[in-house]
Amino acid sequence: MSSKISNSAKSWINVETNSDFPIQNLPFGIFKTASKSARVGIAIGNQIVDVKALFDLGYLHGLNIKSSDLENCYLNDLMSNGKIVCSQLRHHVYDLLEESNDSLKNNKEHLAKVIVSQNEATMLLPVKVGDYTDFYSSREHATNVGTMFRDPNNALLPNWLHIPVGYHGRASSIILSGEPIYRPKGQSKPDPEAPPVYGPSARLDFELEMAFVTFEGKPLGDSISTAEADDYIFGMCLFNDWSARDIQSWEYVPLGPFLAKNFASSMSPWIVTLEALEQFRIPGPVQNPKVLPYLEYSGNKHIDIKLQVLIEPENGNENLICQSNYKHMYWNMNQQLAHHTINGCNIKCGDMMASGTISGPTEDSFGSMLELAWKGTKPLKMDDGSERKFINDGDTVIMRGYCEKDGIRVGFGEVSSKVLPAK
Amino acid sequence: MSSKISNSAKSWINVETNSDFPIQNLPFGIFKTASKSARVGIAIGNQIVDVKALFDLGYLHGLNIKSSDLENCYLNDLMSNGKIVCSQLRHHVYDLLEESNDSLKNNKEHLAKVIVSQNEATMLLPVKVGDYTDFYSSREHATNVGTMFRDPNNALLPNWLHIPVGYHGRASSIILSGEPIYRPKGQSKPDPEAPPVYGPSARLDFELEMAFVTFEGKPLGDSISTAEADDYIFGMCLFNDWSARDIQSWEYVPLGPFLAKNFASSMSPWIVTLEALEQFRIPGPVQNPKVLPYLEYSGNKHIDIKLQVLIEPENGNENLICQSNYKHMYWNMNQQLAHHTINGCNIKCGDMMASGTISGPTEDSFGSMLELAWKGTKPLKMDDGSERKFINDGDTVIMRGYCEKDGIRVGFGEVSSKVLPAK
Repeated sequence: MSSKISNSAKSWINVETNSDFPIQNLPFGIFKTASKSARVGIAIGNQIVDVKALFDLGYLHGLNIKSSDLENCYLNDLMSNGKIVCSQLRHHVYDLLEESNDSLKNNKEHLAKVIVSQNEATMLLPVKVGDYTDFYSSREHATNVGTMFRDPNNALLPNWLHIPVGYHGRASSIILSGEPIYRPKGQSKPDPEAPPVYGPSARLDFELEMAFVTFEGKPLGDSISTAEADDYIFGMCLFNDWSARDIQSWEYVPLGPFLAKNFASSMSPWIVTLEALEQFRIPGPVQNPKVLPYLEYSGNKHIDIKLQVLIEPENGNENLICQSNYKHMYWNMNQQLAHHTINGCNIKCGDMMASGTISGPTEDSFGSMLELAWKGTKPLKMDDGSERKFINDGDTVIMRGYCEKDGIRVGFGEVSSKVLPAK
Repeated sequence: MSSKISNSAKSWINVETNSDFPIQNLPFGIFKTASKSARVGIAIGNQIVDVKALFDLGYLHGLNIKSSDLENCYLNDLMSNGKIVCSQLRHHVYDLLEESNDSLKNNKEHLAKVIVSQNEATMLLPVKVGDYTDFYSSREHATNVGTMFRDPNNALLPNWLHIPVGYHGRASSIILSGEPIYRPKGQSKPDPEAPPVYGPSARLDFELEMAFVTFEGKPLGDSISTAEADDYIFGMCLFNDWSARDIQSWEYVPLGPFLAKNFASSMSPWIVTLEALEQFRIPGPVQNPKVLPYLEYSGNKHIDIKLQVLIEPENGNENLICQSNYKHMYWNMNQQLAHHTINGCNIKCGDMMASGTISGPTEDSFGSMLELAWKGTKPLKMDDGSERKFINDGDTVIMRGYCEKDGIRVGFGEVSSKVLPAK
């Protein structure tokens, strides 16, 4: 029998006060070390619990998982056992790490096999993403874009308040935090009167997003309701939806963004379970006009997640350029998943769905350079005196996020990627 | 040493005159029977060569493939060996089937293990599709759509003649010929003055397309040139990009089609190799304005593939409603692949890229109901007296395609799907 996870619980593993990974979090990832092949890990403080080692030592007896689910390059096989099994595993690890539990704590030989320092581990892409969908669910972001490119008085398009607008993105180019990206090349049309030109993008941007990862859904033709949606969501991560604005504005009519986005999207390595986020749920905005019945939901389905974006120029310091919050979303994950499947579209284990740029109401909470520097008209100052309208070669873009309430902090770590010149 | 495939060659297996699968074709698929697990097959006439059985009997000695590449639910593992190995395998099977080769022909025991009647086999989805991209490369189709929904005098959008416009689609809902689809439900806005409504789509359409399947590409940041593109293409199939026009027109601005398309796309079971299609290559249209250098190509890169669409009402007969040709494409596969990767986007083994609706210049060659019935203004008559503006529940939509030249016919079989009422 596993225990309920308690806010007053502490682990016998030391966890620093500001750690994103207290015993109340226990996110899942994939790691390897010099001596360990790729396998499932659970983060605690600055350490990783080697779940495969726990299995081999008999600590996971009674859980319906296989050794090959854990010694694996991805979380997908573990996730394919379903939400209940994944939750049981997390609670099982909670019990083992809880300070009053001596079984693992006092076994030095086992500890040496199970506990790995994050410094000695290499994190790997945690999920083999089948299909990747990007939503567009921040009202402030959609309004900002509409104001800049269309009509400030009719900034939102007619469908926006009725539909959690989304589109399909590229799964193959989703990469892990720490991997650099190459500046994309492509067609753009900087001079409206001249033909299009080819070259490296001059307007490389980030988009501050969160993404969620799904369990296996229902067969083709069936739908997942807003009430059922939580059962199909494994957890969340930070997500940087890299965007080339000059390529985007030339290509996107009428079928949407394509090469402007599919060169790379970066994700953080730890998937924080929906369960760990439950206590940070909050009410969402009143939706007016009233949504169609299949998009109605009950309960608190939004989440208070504090978000930051920083730019670190080559050999420079981190510059905080944005403070936003996932609570600013107009459409929540339950509505996104219900909408995605209302037509009978099937969701598979390991699909990824991103939020769209998360912009808040204030100028310092906008989630992209396009908005922060307002289409290049208000360049951002770095502490080295340089200015940014968009992202330069050599810049590292870092996103961090965490929930905090009643002294409990559940965080996501970071997604950090350096921009290299076009190949 | 394998032989060059000759147009004068015949197989000792009987192939009827109008068969899509003479010895000059030899397409790849995945099949199973009551006694055989899922495995790689090659079509010849009305038969299938069980490639796994050939391997087990020692006929494929010297080829760099593994047993597990062949006893497999998908072609991906075989394809991951690369184009040269897949071509060697096809040539090897050609040699064994050629009428002067007695090695297999005269071994009754082996024949019983290797040759399977297509009537006794169940075909399976041949490829595990990683990412699916849909292009929009028929000028006639783009012009028709632009004429109907925008301005007949400026039907093509400004980017269309410069970019092989494309967008990402949903891989999880690509299904095999023979599988029925459910009419999608969703939001539409039939009355422009009233709020959107929810219900089954009232404007279900097909799109006549061809798709190609890729080999593993290059790392992120690299591009595939038009000259290199053929080396990354395994083969082609027929493709029905099901579309719900009422959902599409309400949702698609500004991020493109989403729920209007992702409920299902149907593909034919046999992948016809690019090599088998080489002799049907023809020149493409003159492209004016001149394309950017990365989209230039040399040689004949278009292909003459005759295409048909038929509607079979419930308990009714097949009604031929469209005769088109893949040669009508403005942008060819080499240009599509070069464009897709020009920004450094990576292509993986088993990705699928569809052409977009293939419409010709005449009214009977349009590749969708939207165009054939011209937005509902010119309903099509069926032989049972009924009319069609779009696709009804109970209708089966069938697409067939083949190349023919100098008495050689290389065909694709068919993709056929029945529409069931919304669940």
